[in-house]
Amino acid sequence: MKARLTSPPAFLRSLVVGALFASSGQAHAQSDPLPSWNGGGAKQAIVGFVRATTTAGSPRFVPPPERIATFDQDGTLWVEHPMYAQVMYCLDKVPALVRAKPELADVEPFKTVMSGDRAAIAKLSTEDLYKILGATLSGMTTDQFAAEVRRWMATARDPRWKRPYTELTYLPMQELLRYLRANGYKTYIVTGGGQDFVRTYSEATYGIPPEQVVGTAGGTTYGYDASGTPILTKEPKLLLNDNNAGKPEGIHLMIGRRPQLAFGNSTGDQQMLEYTGTGDGARLSMLLLHDDATREYAYGPAHGLPDTKVGAFSVALDSIAKARGWTVVSMKKDWKRVFAFE
Amino acid sequence: MKARLTSPPAFLRSLVVGALFASSGQAHAQSDPLPSWNGGGAKQAIVGFVRATTTAGSPRFVPPPERIATFDQDGTLWVEHPMYAQVMYCLDKVPALVRAKPELADVEPFKTVMSGDRAAIAKLSTEDLYKILGATLSGMTTDQFAAEVRRWMATARDPRWKRPYTELTYLPMQELLRYLRANGYKTYIVTGGGQDFVRTYSEATYGIPPEQVVGTAGGTTYGYDASGTPILTKEPKLLLNDNNAGKPEGIHLMIGRRPQLAFGNSTGDQQMLEYTGTGDGARLSMLLLHDDATREYAYGPAHGLPDTKVGAFSVALDSIAKARGWTVVSMKKDWKRVFAFE
Repeated sequence: MKARLTSPPAFLRSLVVGALFASSGQAHAQSDPLPSWNGGGAKQAIVGFVRATTTAGSPRFVPPPERIATFDQDGTLWVEHPMYAQVMYCLDKVPALVRAKPELADVEPFKTVMSGDRAAIAKLSTEDLYKILGATLSGMTTDQFAAEVRRWMATARDPRWKRPYTELTYLPMQELLRYLRANGYKTYIVTGGGQDFVRTYSEATYGIPPEQVVGTAGGTTYGYDASGTPILTKEPKLLLNDNNAGKPEGIHLMIGRRPQLAFGNSTGDQQMLEYTGTGDGARLSMLLLHDDATREYAYGPAHGLPDTKVGAFSVALDSIAKARGWTVVSMKKDWKRVFAFE
Repeated sequence: MKARLTSPPAFLRSLVVGALFASSGQAHAQSDPLPSWNGGGAKQAIVGFVRATTTAGSPRFVPPPERIATFDQDGTLWVEHPMYAQVMYCLDKVPALVRAKPELADVEPFKTVMSGDRAAIAKLSTEDLYKILGATLSGMTTDQFAAEVRRWMATARDPRWKRPYTELTYLPMQELLRYLRANGYKTYIVTGGGQDFVRTYSEATYGIPPEQVVGTAGGTTYGYDASGTPILTKEPKLLLNDNNAGKPEGIHLMIGRRPQLAFGNSTGDQQMLEYTGTGDGARLSMLLLHDDATREYAYGPAHGLPDTKVGAFSVALDSIAKARGWTVVSMKKDWKRVFAFE
């Protein structure tokens, strides 16, 4: 929403300044749409891409309806360490689940979660986590689920900064989203996270409406409550695993156009970036490298940083990025500020 | 696209006229946004709904981001008799399919289609039709499929009017789509037809971009062609059957908001209209009754008209419509004109 309110004045200002100082380099600097980005290759790539695709008469001009930009969320738009916010939500929901179904108290992995043993919880396998996700993300109506997530988001705090997760979005990425929208791009989130989960806060947090969130999605079943009112109940049936190849498949399913720009940070984004990078005209595929242990975290074996379960920037991904000419953004070098609250 | 070009002048004109004749009833008549609709209950219901939901301070005001309107396509936005355009497409594709896979020539239902025996083809079962759809709508890349549909649409003609199918859209419905968009509504197609099929012409035909088309959708598989270029191949695996309960389920999956207005014409639209009609504030659920054998077709057992395989307005649907207060639009009485070419 912010972009809509601030863009016209910014646009008018740059026109007026441009007219007054037609030959001055100051004009652009005064209306820098990406103030939290340091000058350099990444920022130049973004600004050059936007100019080439939005300037009438440019050989790489893209008509406004075709301006689609897709963004991974975890590790690209906000912090994903030490664990995805949605997994924290699901772990927090286990006690209520066990109260409702006491027979789960002695069943793994619920037993381990209920023990409160942090070391044991951190060691749960991916399969165990999927069991917890399946059990805590289904069985309620879509309206009940959205209300529960909103309640949780209002009080949950990140373990390091002690702030709501929605404050841990990266300021340079918020600027990029607004800059693209001000230039006619429709911005989408394409996340391995749960579509229903992210849709509850996407509009307030990123200015991205629910219908522009593509994510891992389970089925729902249409029915009626006791009073005959129609309801949709969330089922533990997976419709779209929006990771890896699932990202371009999900983009085709939910959007039906190939994006012009895509931004990710991990091996799960490889196929989205490949798919976006294919085709005629200007294409921009970008990867965020987490190399800033002081201001955020440093991880990614491709750059000699620690490997982690979450958000691996693998050696294989790095060689694909080089071969296909993707732009790697260094958090340490390319970002002047990381968070709005700094 | 048309709406974007014509709406601002129409809006300005109504402002100017409103200022000149502030107390005159002429002002509205001069800028009637629905000129192909006769006055009456249906038109009043539409105009009343739009005014109530878009007038600031109205108790039923709907904020712009939440203004969602969903439309069935076949029999609601364009002609569905004697057979859905997409089924005609699939039947036309059978010869090429049999050339590519000669072993199908002696296998039913392909054998019957190849015989050219129209009476026998008309008698094919629903199960046979699904076999033909599955075989002709999968196996190619998404780009190849879109190109094939566009080629077919450019030359195929409806059997009665001998015109391209895309000219057989209803003028009053085109006006309604534009009127809603001019008032901040995002218009969606929610069709039992194939999502990939409808997306090839939705923007040019209805001003509805591909990302606002929800339809029956099959899976795709991400891969690479011989040159290493990423491709998506259409699979015969059903992801969403966008009929009946599948319509609200599809709306939740693809849009994630409950519509304020929905428009259908058959039993396959019942659940979408129920779901849309639920909740606080202004809600408008509408059904088109095909009762005009002269200008179009007359069918629908609920109103004593012939029953047909396609687009049945059943007795059960009629009683649900009455119980839930839906607006039934009579093509014969409520529409001044049916087609733009008349």
